[in-house]
Order: sequence, then structure tokens, then C-alpha cells
Amino acid sequence: MRPIRLGVLISGRGSNLLAILEAIERQDLPAEVALVVSNRAQAPGLEFARARAIPTFVVERGARGDRAERHQAVRTALEARGVDLVVCAGWDEILTPEFVAAHAGRILNTHPSLLPAFGGGLHAPADALTHGVKVSGCTIHFVTDDVDGGPIVLQRPVPVLDDDTPESLANRILTQEHRALPETIRLYAEGRLRTEGRRVYILPAER
Amino acid sequence: MRPIRLGVLISGRGSNLLAILEAIERQDLPAEVALVVSNRAQAPGLEFARARAIPTFVVERGARGDRAERHQAVRTALEARGVDLVVCAGWDEILTPEFVAAHAGRILNTHPSLLPAFGGGLHAPADALTHGVKVSGCTIHFVTDDVDGGPIVLQRPVPVLDDDTPESLANRILTQEHRALPETIRLYAEGRLRTEGRRVYILPAER
Repeated sequence: MRPIRLGVLISGRGSNLLAILEAIERQDLPAEVALVVSNRAQAPGLEFARARAIPTFVVERGARGDRAERHQAVRTALEARGVDLVVCAGWDEILTPEFVAAHAGRILNTHPSLLPAFGGGLHAPADALTHGVKVSGCTIHFVTDDVDGGPIVLQRPVPVLDDDTPESLANRILTQEHRALPETIRLYAEGRLRTEGRRVYILPAER
Repeated sequence: MRPIRLGVLISGRGSNLLAILEAIERQDLPAEVALVVSNRAQAPGLEFARARAIPTFVVERGARGDRAERHQAVRTALEARGVDLVVCAGWDEILTPEFVAAHAGRILNTHPSLLPAFGGGLHAPADALTHGVKVSGCTIHFVTDDVDGGPIVLQRPVPVLDDDTPESLANRILTQEHRALPETIRLYAEGRLRTEGRRVYILPAER
């Protein structure tokens, strides 16, 4: 069985990309990263790809209104690399409906809260602190046109501490994302995810 | 220091009332239940009070529109018993603004979800299953006029399993409520809760 081919979309430091690469390198994840896409030319995470000779594709965010064209260019690049599964790993743009439709059921996203709480924004850890919750966490979900609302594959709880700052909470959540995201990709690669409506069931491993 | 006097409001089987009584009886909770209020004369939980000779007060839900009068009667009964802290333990009515104002900062509620997710209804475990979350839990919070929106004191996560029914999930959450609710009351009784805006900080225990 050939390894599943991943297209990983990043916008910043790429720590979740690194978690995926390290899971592959220690043979915990039957996958290969076929393309890394960034919407910022200066995203430090691009270095993780370059250091491994993984192709990169940059579609710099520019003027308002160019999104459809840029995301079409991303689609073309992913198809050219034969990508099976798209992974949004810190990617900070809403994907166009055309992009989502073209990859229906084949796009994962990681979000730093226990959805449906604190969706719809880029500051979920800060929002969780402001709301005063005592438990937050991370969510790995399929991407649909309902932003942060697609079927949930994995969630991991993270305690909120009295002395947390948005940064300290975000870092503690990120540590869980670094485990949950490769685990989700592995379940997908093994064909063990069955989606029925909003629920995603995890099938037992084949013996 | 005299034990804090509790008024516990129930509507059904009263399992959280029993958890409070058992915590008191094993001397884990410096409190006494001064009054148990039910809005259903047939609530099985009333037996836990009667078996211990704890006074009960029943304000049967009747015709629409009688809520203000009934809740005023509950206030009078609680005051007559010198209640310090009101605990909604499965109570299924929204308290009137007058009641909430009269006991501001002195009413706790337990809710079977990780608020703000799945608030505003009586079927939180079923709603969580329908939404497909992988982690739910319980929330103990202060009651304000913002239903299910008051400052959060404690939350406990509970995993959602693929074969869960609303009942099995509700029971697993209830087990956590049985621990978290007495613990919250204990922190309150020890004067260790400090509310600032929406956040509730837990002060260290005195030596």
C-alpha cells in the first residue's frame, strides 16, 4: 500500500507540520508530505519543508478579492502533486466553496478549542480565557463550508489554569494538537474513519 | 465556624442531592442541607431529605404564569431556614430575576455539558451526541440571569464514545457532577472562590 500523500497548508511557524513530519520519520504515520503550501512567503514553517526537499508553493495574501484565484492555484498545485488529503495546519484563511467542494471529505483542520465552543475566530485560547472556562482543548475536524463546523474526528481536553495567559494556554493546547493531528491522519490513512451526518466513527484496526 | 447552610433545589431523582448529603456524612463537606425544594411533589429525590428528617418544600409546577409567585414562595422558605447558598441540582426551571437578584453570587447550578457548548436546553447530552463532539463534560457555575451563562467554577471533561446513547453519556457525565458539585460547595464554604468578571479564581487552602 502506497503511503497517503498529504498537502499541508500553513501560515506561520508550522509546528503542526513539524509534528506530522516527525511522526512520519519515526514511522508512526504511513504518509508522505507531497506539498507544503503557505499563504505567507515568510512563514518560518516553510523551512521544515525545504530542509527535507519537500516541494513548497506560496500564494502570498495580497489585495482583497484575490482569494478565489489564489485558492484555485493551490488546487492546481495539490493536484499536480497527487495529493490525497489536505491538512490545514495553522492555515489562517477560509477556503473557497470551490476548493472545499473539490476536496470534499478530504480536508482536515485543527482548531485550538473544543468546538463548537470558541469557533469562528483566530483567537480561541484568548476567547476561552475571557469566557472563564476551566477546560478547553483542541479539535481535529473535516472542513466543510460551515466554518469550524465540519464533522469532528478527535478532541483532546486541556485544563485552563488560574494563572494562564492566552499564550500559555495556546501552547498547552498546541502540545495536544501535535499528538492529535498525526493520529487523525493515521486513522484516515488506515481507512478507519466513517462519517455519518455530523458524527465520525472510528473503526477498529484491522488485525 | 458554623457549617454553611444549603438550600438544594431538585426536580427529579435527586442524585446530586444525594452526592451532597453523602459528602457531608463522610465529613468531606463542611455544610448542612437546611432545606430541599422540589417543583414536583412526586420527585423521588425528596425521599433522601425525608429519610434524614431534612425539611422539604414543594412548589408544584402548575398553570403557566405562576412562576413569579412560586419562586417568591421558595425565597421565603429559604430565608426562613437561614440558607446561605442555593444549589440547583437538577432543578428544571429558570429562576426569576427577582430570585436571582436576591441571592446574587449565592446560587450554584450544575449543567451536563462543557459550557458554553450545549447550554440553553434540557437535553445537553443528546445535543452533544447529535453534534458529534468527542469530549463533553459537566459545568458547575454561578447562576445569573444569563441562562447557563454565569461565571464558571469547575468543569470536568468526559469522553464521548462511539457507542454512546444519550442515556449512557448522561450517566457518565452525572458521575462527574457527583464529584464536582460537592467540591464546588466546599470551595465556596471555605471562602476560596474569587469572581472577577466572568472568571472565577480558586484561592489556595488556608494552612
